[in-house]
Amino acid sequence: MALGTSMIIRLEMDKKQVTFGEVAAAISDAGGDVVAIDVIHASPESTTRDLTVNLPETVRESILKSVGELSGVKVVNVSDRTFLAHLGGKIEVQPKFPVKNREDLSHVYTPGVAKVCMAIHEDKQKAFSLTIKRNMIAVVSDGTAVLGLGDIGPEAAMPVMEGKAMLFKQLGGVDAFPICLDTKDTEEIINAIKWMAPSFGGINLEDIASPRCFEIERRLTEELDIPVFHDDQHGTAVVVLAGLLNALRIVDKPLENAKIVLLGVGAAGSACIKMLLSAGAHNVIAVDQCGALVSGEEYPHDMWNWIAEHTNPYQERGGLTEVIQGADVFIGVSRPGLLTVEHIQSMAEDRIVFAMANPNPEIEPELAEPHVRVLATGRSDYPNQINNVLCFPGIFRGALDCRASVINEEMKVAAAKAIASVVKEDELNELYIIPGVFNEKVVEYVRRGVVEAAIRTGVARRTPPEFR
Amino acid sequence: MALGTSMIIRLEMDKKQVTFGEVAAAISDAGGDVVAIDVIHASPESTTRDLTVNLPETVRESILKSVGELSGVKVVNVSDRTFLAHLGGKIEVQPKFPVKNREDLSHVYTPGVAKVCMAIHEDKQKAFSLTIKRNMIAVVSDGTAVLGLGDIGPEAAMPVMEGKAMLFKQLGGVDAFPICLDTKDTEEIINAIKWMAPSFGGINLEDIASPRCFEIERRLTEELDIPVFHDDQHGTAVVVLAGLLNALRIVDKPLENAKIVLLGVGAAGSACIKMLLSAGAHNVIAVDQCGALVSGEEYPHDMWNWIAEHTNPYQERGGLTEVIQGADVFIGVSRPGLLTVEHIQSMAEDRIVFAMANPNPEIEPELAEPHVRVLATGRSDYPNQINNVLCFPGIFRGALDCRASVINEEMKVAAAKAIASVVKEDELNELYIIPGVFNEKVVEYVRRGVVEAAIRTGVARRTPPEFR
Repeated sequence: MALGTSMIIRLEMDKKQVTFGEVAAAISDAGGDVVAIDVIHASPESTTRDLTVNLPETVRESILKSVGELSGVKVVNVSDRTFLAHLGGKIEVQPKFPVKNREDLSHVYTPGVAKVCMAIHEDKQKAFSLTIKRNMIAVVSDGTAVLGLGDIGPEAAMPVMEGKAMLFKQLGGVDAFPICLDTKDTEEIINAIKWMAPSFGGINLEDIASPRCFEIERRLTEELDIPVFHDDQHGTAVVVLAGLLNALRIVDKPLENAKIVLLGVGAAGSACIKMLLSAGAHNVIAVDQCGALVSGEEYPHDMWNWIAEHTNPYQERGGLTEVIQGADVFIGVSRPGLLTVEHIQSMAEDRIVFAMANPNPEIEPELAEPHVRVLATGRSDYPNQINNVLCFPGIFRGALDCRASVINEEMKVAAAKAIASVVKEDELNELYIIPGVFNEKVVEYVRRGVVEAAIRTGVARRTPPEFR
Repeated sequence: MALGTSMIIRLEMDKKQVTFGEVAAAISDAGGDVVAIDVIHASPESTTRDLTVNLPETVRESILKSVGELSGVKVVNVSDRTFLAHLGGKIEVQPKFPVKNREDLSHVYTPGVAKVCMAIHEDKQKAFSLTIKRNMIAVVSDGTAVLGLGDIGPEAAMPVMEGKAMLFKQLGGVDAFPICLDTKDTEEIINAIKWMAPSFGGINLEDIASPRCFEIERRLTEELDIPVFHDDQHGTAVVVLAGLLNALRIVDKPLENAKIVLLGVGAAGSACIKMLLSAGAHNVIAVDQCGALVSGEEYPHDMWNWIAEHTNPYQERGGLTEVIQGADVFIGVSRPGLLTVEHIQSMAEDRIVFAMANPNPEIEPELAEPHVRVLATGRSDYPNQINNVLCFPGIFRGALDCRASVINEEMKVAAAKAIASVVKEDELNELYIIPGVFNEKVVEYVRRGVVEAAIRTGVARRTPPEFR
């Protein structure tokens, strides 16, 4: 299915020469679908209307040509609905209550604010209750690994970070502010975030290129007392584990015994491997361009060396073709086209394939489907979408509510189990292993799991009332 | 007048033993004023009520004692209204529209967002229309010169910056996000702000100690293409000039001829001096602990040397007592108690005194009033309050609307004249030289003046429709 788009066409129509029916027919004939009409202006002779038209991207010009050629029709303006949604940015900073008069002003600003400042000055922890730190996180990127677009720069990364901030608030009630940094230097990124940390209760790192993302996250986690979470790594890993737990329930194989081959050992791949190990998997094989990682070899990154030492217990060597033989699970976080039908056919029975390269999976879903038991992708137009949106609002909701100092492996595993548990036993099937992103239970379940794990592991600095 | 506060007392009252009238009487007798009642719970035997009580800070304990001693009354909880207003912070980040379904999600996030990102990647200036950069500024402090409290640290400075963000939005429609930096190093502060600049359309520096605030503002203005404005300096200077222009109209003295003595050559004082010179004043004398600054002397800061060279045309030497003789205007941005009645009596006729030390002026207003024609202070409990709130929302509203690259002296002078012009000729008198902070014309007038000045001086990168 080609992904569609929509545009808004402002038309001035001369009533004597043309009817709206003729205009609508011309649009339909050219491949568009009129989904909304707003009358902007009407006079006895003419009307001006905004037509919202859904269309495949390819027919945009032919629709405008057809409409423009009708006599009595003037195309006043054409805008793209997606661009319109972004005009002026997608988020705003709102006072929680109005400041109506001098009395209000004296509470929120001078002179009243002084005693609140001094209370925090005397006990810095009070910032968690008396400032936005209680519920505000930063969504920080350097714009170097944005979606599948690569290094497009901090300004161009902003629309993604703003979108993320919208979702944090709407789904999790978490206030999130997007900061795109005009530096790609590891130390500078670390410093920038450390210096701005007093304003925030958590840091969501986003779309920062590998391998510097590892160092940045590790250092910030060590040096800050608020949770730091690189969503591209851990968000993906949490949702993959959630989906995999349910997929394995369907085929009735325990995680501990499953042979799992993971292709693409970048930021997301590394995190998935750690998550699988934390959750109890034993036989995980990581494959990248150099083939399966094997302990004893020397690899260019610390992360790869660590993975080589902690995975592949039977020291399987070779490329994907060799090591995928007999595998129960394939997880792809790599590039389109790397997985073939032959690869899949060489796996064990009841094959589970998570092909999550974006925007096009490691294998076309239509090709894979006949040969697998469970298929998941990163796309919304197939069943079983592995989408980070299932993880980040709930995991930060939980971390903020218990004032966690970090988001540790136990909290991530708890989040994955919580997401998996939203799909009830009697709902679970090959086409429904993971809930949809707008499922209202997700955040609530994840929050609960995360808070419980934080309390259990001693990183919660506050116990919310319902957990006492 | 002692500044008051308020508290909220939650009381459980046994109806058989006590009436509300007795409780209210006890509070009044102890010096409090019940201004609001919320019934929280009521049963046939008892009621629980929240009483909001205004009171001078000194009688807080005696009120609670009196109420607690009444039989049948149990004080359940006492909270401070100011603290309550700050709980969890005073601002939030809101999506401008809801994301209700996958269709919406595909516009604001993947996959639709990709084409918006690429449009900005191809033309970085599009960030000003397609991201929050259009209307978002950062309110940045290092927490070193907060109100009159001094160096209280970044966490403790947050409540002030949040309050400022509320006022930016409510009064000027400007989205403002508070960032308090965990560093006091000039270079680090400059770097932190430069690195985060892609997210913002302007930078409001706040409560950063002198003299590093000068260097930080100068460098950022040079190195960034968005306006940078240190409100403690220029906001104060703009409002002082606004008030002074009107005060001079009352006494019918032109600014050009007035002898103006300014006491306290810190951040605000330096900016006031520059602003007065920009507006046409000739005879300005700057006085600090070392006495009047005179050209030819060597001073410890660059800023003082600059001021010495550009002011005091008649090379007057000595302390305040010497140079204030015959002055038309005294402007104090220094410390309480430095100005005496004798000082004032040595000034020229129709004396204008702006005594703006915070929270207590250079001279008690009651002492000064009999001897001056026009008196202004920084306080809300006397007439003619010189309050930055009159400046910052409108000046950034104007700068953002015309996408100004800087806020230059012409724009600041225009803002001052605009504020002054809100007071109409027939309203102007000794007790009303400056509009109130909630006067709705202020932002509109300031915006217009600022946009016109930006266009005139060639720093506007966009001409709003009504200025074409």
